[in-house]
Amino acid sequence: MDYIFSDKISSLQPSAIREILKASSVPGMIALAAGNPAPDSFPIDAIKEISQDIFENHPIEALQYGVTEGYPALIKRVTDWLHTSKKIGKDTDSVIITSGAQQVMDLTTKVLCNEGDVVIAETPSFIGSLNCFRAYNVKLRGVSLEDDGINIEELEKALKEEPKAKFIYVIPNFQNPSGITMSVEKRKAVYNLACKYNKIILEDNPYGDTRVAGEDLPSIKSFDEEGRVIYAGTFSKVMAPGIRVGYVLGPSAVVAKMTVGKQTSDVHTPMFNQMLVEKWMANYDIDEHIAKIKDCYRERLNFLCKRIDEELGGIVKYVRPEGGLFVWCDLPENIDMIEFCNNAIKRNVAVVPGTAFVVNDDDKFNAIRLNFTTPTIEAMDKGLKILGEVAAEMNKR
Amino acid sequence: MDYIFSDKISSLQPSAIREILKASSVPGMIALAAGNPAPDSFPIDAIKEISQDIFENHPIEALQYGVTEGYPALIKRVTDWLHTSKKIGKDTDSVIITSGAQQVMDLTTKVLCNEGDVVIAETPSFIGSLNCFRAYNVKLRGVSLEDDGINIEELEKALKEEPKAKFIYVIPNFQNPSGITMSVEKRKAVYNLACKYNKIILEDNPYGDTRVAGEDLPSIKSFDEEGRVIYAGTFSKVMAPGIRVGYVLGPSAVVAKMTVGKQTSDVHTPMFNQMLVEKWMANYDIDEHIAKIKDCYRERLNFLCKRIDEELGGIVKYVRPEGGLFVWCDLPENIDMIEFCNNAIKRNVAVVPGTAFVVNDDDKFNAIRLNFTTPTIEAMDKGLKILGEVAAEMNKR
Repeated sequence: MDYIFSDKISSLQPSAIREILKASSVPGMIALAAGNPAPDSFPIDAIKEISQDIFENHPIEALQYGVTEGYPALIKRVTDWLHTSKKIGKDTDSVIITSGAQQVMDLTTKVLCNEGDVVIAETPSFIGSLNCFRAYNVKLRGVSLEDDGINIEELEKALKEEPKAKFIYVIPNFQNPSGITMSVEKRKAVYNLACKYNKIILEDNPYGDTRVAGEDLPSIKSFDEEGRVIYAGTFSKVMAPGIRVGYVLGPSAVVAKMTVGKQTSDVHTPMFNQMLVEKWMANYDIDEHIAKIKDCYRERLNFLCKRIDEELGGIVKYVRPEGGLFVWCDLPENIDMIEFCNNAIKRNVAVVPGTAFVVNDDDKFNAIRLNFTTPTIEAMDKGLKILGEVAAEMNKR
Repeated sequence: MDYIFSDKISSLQPSAIREILKASSVPGMIALAAGNPAPDSFPIDAIKEISQDIFENHPIEALQYGVTEGYPALIKRVTDWLHTSKKIGKDTDSVIITSGAQQVMDLTTKVLCNEGDVVIAETPSFIGSLNCFRAYNVKLRGVSLEDDGINIEELEKALKEEPKAKFIYVIPNFQNPSGITMSVEKRKAVYNLACKYNKIILEDNPYGDTRVAGEDLPSIKSFDEEGRVIYAGTFSKVMAPGIRVGYVLGPSAVVAKMTVGKQTSDVHTPMFNQMLVEKWMANYDIDEHIAKIKDCYRERLNFLCKRIDEELGGIVKYVRPEGGLFVWCDLPENIDMIEFCNNAIKRNVAVVPGTAFVVNDDDKFNAIRLNFTTPTIEAMDKGLKILGEVAAEMNKR
């Protein structure tokens, strides 16, 4: 039969970018295009011990249905941890556990947006979130990024021009893909604009605990007096992504609706996975583990930047990120991004072209995103050498 | 601030039924309202062994990001198992792994339905699926059930009257909540009507492997020559529900879109959980395990029916199910369902009122749903004695 699909799913078209991403998983490819945390950052020994304990002592609880909100002990632990280590969360806020932070984007859009509503986002931004918003048939309005975060004047213009905007989506720490960190002043300004225009903010902070330079900045949620900020977090980068455990801290009324929305999506996040995280938080030193991840990531980031400087120094421009997983490099006008990516793939190096992260249809990014947590140091070394050669060849013409 | 929620989430209102369900989780309550598989059916020893093996020998694979489609070895195993044991799946079909079967309902609606489209469903039907459809702002059209399944004339009338119907949702085996099994003739008739009116069928089969009497019947998917049937399955009832591993077998073009939809929902189902199921299927005797579950469920179902006959024999009517988790009892006119449920709760017995499963706004069910897999035999015994007393008192008036 001929299948007719919904408008929302039809809007998510496969594209040239997907082909490049697909190519990046070919064996032998140097995966600078990936976005995986470094596997040596996973607390494998702890997980092994905890899982034995769970199946030995609490098998029924780990295997039976749970409530949609999440494993109560984990909710409490996350709530307390956000309160003490991040200074966020009031009596009027609630936490629920989600199937990765991706589900927070999904549930936020589900409960706040009708079709035709608008979501305002930094451009470029994380493709997974953008496609999630698009899958609800909302219109995206992009606001450009400066070296210290979102352009505030442009944001206010967007808020004025988009009365149907339901929320502002931002990644304040080491933004994906740009690597940019929003300054404290801009965090406050974004919050104040949300108050002025009566909007909600979706603050996505997957990378916050991977800071390798500079000082931690207060989250936008920490300024939230009016119950306008939904804060999305995840254990993907501090523990392991394959377990798919994230969380949301938001105004209780909104989180209650998200719970209703989650029930119809996947009933609840797997119990074993939630118990694993809870027992890890309870019985192991997370701060020590995070410090180890930071050491590992600092070394890798420094190495990547050194190699960019050596091989692409006169050619690309980048803002050195203070954490996260990515470095975003602007290419000069005479080097076409797609051609560059294709040339790199031919020589077994995969990088993501900037177009993958476009919000507005007319955004132009002549840039590439490089990841420093998936490939080995040796692979990065070799990969950058090849990128340098590709750029030099293209730059000559 | 005052929150304004989306129309779709606002349509899912809390109700009197939820209060009854909430009351059913109070400690000391006899939980005939629940829908949990029996915990003694979980293969705990196997799961313990497998999890040790996974974290010992394949920790990175279990903890790193996976692809949206699912763990390739599990996809292959499920595909083969459906092919050999259920005789379903063609070259033009594909399987992906989902976060429980609930996600199959979600993804099917996501890829097929625009707002205002129609889903045709048996009435009564599973509240989790109905609310999932409602969360996409689709209109539900209910078709009544007879003792051998959906009313075929009524289904054709609905298909004629609802040109915007996108799919027909059915649970052919031991339907939730009615316990009814659709006859082979009706399965063929439903398929033929789908062909005649050019519709898709969503065949939900969570309970198929819990048959305790009678003979297995071919699924609707087994008749699918035209690529019209999406088949949803789960490991919740044969292995454990808390792991949240389900799957869909459907036309490849539809499943490809579901994959795109899943990527924006939760990226992928947790890797450890998928590997657990895969290794269980590979190294343990599933058929033997299923046979054990059937023995356990047969004993419980027989006991519940015996006690219904003894305590409510002259009062309620029911069709004895051949599997599943539930028995659906019609109350006489003079006993009001909600009053009955409230009276039972006052005496610490929780049952679900039939209204919870209503599809059309004007459907009237004066009935209750009883579960026989969650409470112990002793609790069922005591629970039915109390229900008998409640019914006798109400019947007198």
